[in-house]
Amino acid sequence: MAEKITKRDINYSEWYNDLVIQSGLAENSAVRGCMVIKPHGWAIWENMKSILDKKFKDTGHVNASFPLLIPKSFLEQEEGHAEGFAKECAVVTHYRLKTHPDKKGKLIVDPESRLEEELIIRPTSETIIWNCYRGWIQSYRDLPILINQWANVMRWEMRTRLFLRTAEFHWQEGHTAHATQEEAVEETLKMLDVYADFMENYMAVPVIKGVKTANERFAGALDTYCVEAMMQDGKALQAGTSHFLGQNFAKAFDVKFLNKEGKLEYAWATSWGVSTRMMGALIMAHSDDDGLVIPPRLAPLHVVIVPIFKNAEQLAAITEKADAIIKELKALNIIVKFDDSDTAKPGWKFAEYELKGVPVRVAMGMRDVENNTVEIARRDTKEKTTVANENLGAYIQDLLEKIQQNMYDKALAFRTANTFVIDTWDAFTAQIEKGGFIYAHWDGTSETEDKIKELTKATIRCIPMDGVEEAGTCVYSGKPSNKRVLFARAY
Amino acid sequence: MAEKITKRDINYSEWYNDLVIQSGLAENSAVRGCMVIKPHGWAIWENMKSILDKKFKDTGHVNASFPLLIPKSFLEQEEGHAEGFAKECAVVTHYRLKTHPDKKGKLIVDPESRLEEELIIRPTSETIIWNCYRGWIQSYRDLPILINQWANVMRWEMRTRLFLRTAEFHWQEGHTAHATQEEAVEETLKMLDVYADFMENYMAVPVIKGVKTANERFAGALDTYCVEAMMQDGKALQAGTSHFLGQNFAKAFDVKFLNKEGKLEYAWATSWGVSTRMMGALIMAHSDDDGLVIPPRLAPLHVVIVPIFKNAEQLAAITEKADAIIKELKALNIIVKFDDSDTAKPGWKFAEYELKGVPVRVAMGMRDVENNTVEIARRDTKEKTTVANENLGAYIQDLLEKIQQNMYDKALAFRTANTFVIDTWDAFTAQIEKGGFIYAHWDGTSETEDKIKELTKATIRCIPMDGVEEAGTCVYSGKPSNKRVLFARAY
Repeated sequence: MAEKITKRDINYSEWYNDLVIQSGLAENSAVRGCMVIKPHGWAIWENMKSILDKKFKDTGHVNASFPLLIPKSFLEQEEGHAEGFAKECAVVTHYRLKTHPDKKGKLIVDPESRLEEELIIRPTSETIIWNCYRGWIQSYRDLPILINQWANVMRWEMRTRLFLRTAEFHWQEGHTAHATQEEAVEETLKMLDVYADFMENYMAVPVIKGVKTANERFAGALDTYCVEAMMQDGKALQAGTSHFLGQNFAKAFDVKFLNKEGKLEYAWATSWGVSTRMMGALIMAHSDDDGLVIPPRLAPLHVVIVPIFKNAEQLAAITEKADAIIKELKALNIIVKFDDSDTAKPGWKFAEYELKGVPVRVAMGMRDVENNTVEIARRDTKEKTTVANENLGAYIQDLLEKIQQNMYDKALAFRTANTFVIDTWDAFTAQIEKGGFIYAHWDGTSETEDKIKELTKATIRCIPMDGVEEAGTCVYSGKPSNKRVLFARAY
Repeated sequence: MAEKITKRDINYSEWYNDLVIQSGLAENSAVRGCMVIKPHGWAIWENMKSILDKKFKDTGHVNASFPLLIPKSFLEQEEGHAEGFAKECAVVTHYRLKTHPDKKGKLIVDPESRLEEELIIRPTSETIIWNCYRGWIQSYRDLPILINQWANVMRWEMRTRLFLRTAEFHWQEGHTAHATQEEAVEETLKMLDVYADFMENYMAVPVIKGVKTANERFAGALDTYCVEAMMQDGKALQAGTSHFLGQNFAKAFDVKFLNKEGKLEYAWATSWGVSTRMMGALIMAHSDDDGLVIPPRLAPLHVVIVPIFKNAEQLAAITEKADAIIKELKALNIIVKFDDSDTAKPGWKFAEYELKGVPVRVAMGMRDVENNTVEIARRDTKEKTTVANENLGAYIQDLLEKIQQNMYDKALAFRTANTFVIDTWDAFTAQIEKGGFIYAHWDGTSETEDKIKELTKATIRCIPMDGVEEAGTCVYSGKPSNKRVLFARAY
């Protein structure tokens, strides 16, 4: 319940954790860093998946499934990739348990079942997929390959947080192979746009598209593009990435094709992914001290109808009215629940559905029955209005669209109010303590980037794609710069 | 291509393997026993998932996600369960790799990253889920819990076959908790019916519902119900199971609730699952020497239109006609592809789409354009018919239904022709060599069951639920029996 949730201005981090648990989205499991995604959380993730999956298919991609386990030697093939992931790999070394020789009922690892080569649980699948692609690609006619995989992956993180950073997480990973560099770059950017479109138009979270600096690039990529969103505490969250991998993986796994000119050439690669981390972004961008606020386009339940009654006769009268409304809403593909359970009072139900983030609550009492009205409460603004039953379906449909738009507008206004163009080091360090996004000049060196991070905990989130050329001097080193980059502290 | 596929009557097993690979459903990976499910195979599995998922939701279930890894000690909690799965567990013992001290570019397992307690990759999730349920269940008001999970699981099988038996496989596992035994048994049977309905009405595979003998029960179950299907070689394939688990897991994980009478009681459990193994059943039940035969309700592509043309002018004339047909088909939710690629000849395309199992092929040449007709070929019977373009959408829609029904009827007729009621041991042993299902009396002992298996490789597939009481004598021991059971060799 909401009273168990720490207020945002007391402790934002505790608010987040309390909210995830109290609203029934997820909880920690007995396995360190691995979470249980509960039905309410999984239902939102399923909605995200289904919308994204359609977008991937509409852009020509197909799904497939590659093994969970990857031979250790595969990771060694691409040096940068190995460096990036080796330190956080769960390693399978044996394939059998046996009963303990002395302790009844206990199991031990059977030492005779040791694997010749250790297997790692995929932290990402470039290596095993490009090892397959070698067999699938001979000619330019076999290209492009546009494959996506919905999968679980594992990275043994030391500090984990529900949804934001977990050892096991769920994601999709697109892995495409192309005949030319141009086509691969085009694909990389196309999928970045798909992500941005999804985040803005479904998650109601405005994002900034940009390219990562060399420091922040995906291990094995030539360029990593990203979408960055602002959370309510002013910190940034990287919500999705799209990588141009060049020919690195084709070279590592010897994937060559005969081009149109009859010459052997290495294939060009991209990979791109979003994960259950987006759930964290969704929660932190919109929710409040009373619970979740879920944008209608992702909500598992759009409308809850709560009858207010004293006896069975009153409930019957309300139910009759409600049935007509439910029918009207269902015909408009609006997902509605009539909660006539008698185990909880209306006030408790109101709080519960607020906690769960249901966008629209409809309350119906006897006076409403007499007046042919209902009381409608918006989750986003908490406004209550009495509305006539006539054309209520259309009214609610319109209201859901308004809520969706309002949530986006509010998030955008918040980001705008917390975004600063800064030119001096003093102003930079002062602002970063208060949070927010900072556009500042940077001299382009990793040394300066590292130094700024060390001094302020702020990182370069990206070099924004819509940034304009502009002469300036680096906010830290004073050296010349021709473009502002986006700084922030980040999740 | 089909010419690379071994004929069924030469070697059924090779036919199966060739077909899976040549039709692009799946292939073996670099990791022993783990397969790559390719786009065509995954598209069929996605259709299966989406139909089943809707059926689960329609029967009141919700989805959730539990961890991939399970602490070794969890497996020890339920003795029968541990015995059943310990011997085939992939074990994670470490969480980090590091660079080899001597060999540049090589990685080794970091010995300092040894886990205090080993983790196994879930072979099934009863233990980790019931460990969660302990925190979720306090009162009868918290019950029932009706949760399903779509997941990958791992059982380290020594002999693997694509789809039929792989180390990693994909499945769904339902895990429900109930306040009473009656309700749990009802759930077990309800889900068995959901599976049978799916297999018969979507996969077009007739099944026999029954209960397993003690020997063949799921490790940890009190009763295992199953659906058994006949493959084209007369062998049985268990396509799905539904388990009544009693209070075993509630006791193992101490999951108690206050019942309506205010007394603490252990919760009652079921679990039920179907896996990518169903893909194997689908292939082996219907396909032929030319390739896959996919029932329309599961086919990723219903209709392919192949134009037969000599030049661009002819193609343009055919395309104009085809566009109208495509529009009509799409309006009927029929998935259609127009293959006007000029890289392959029509004959090659015909063979390719037969291999892939597309239910309906439409060929259009210049004569068809003149006559306002098309040539339609059914994949299931190979019949070709010339049909007028008028009302072609309705014709094809009807044809798809006919194909679906015909595939089921054919499979049922095959099963009927290969099912035998047998009363003597000589007839039993002679028939089992030839294949097929045998209904015979059995004395009810594990000893006889084991002996029959040893002598004939036949197992009791199930005690059929629709079997009638009938006095008889055991086909092997001659002891009295009151019901026939179903024997067969099985996958």
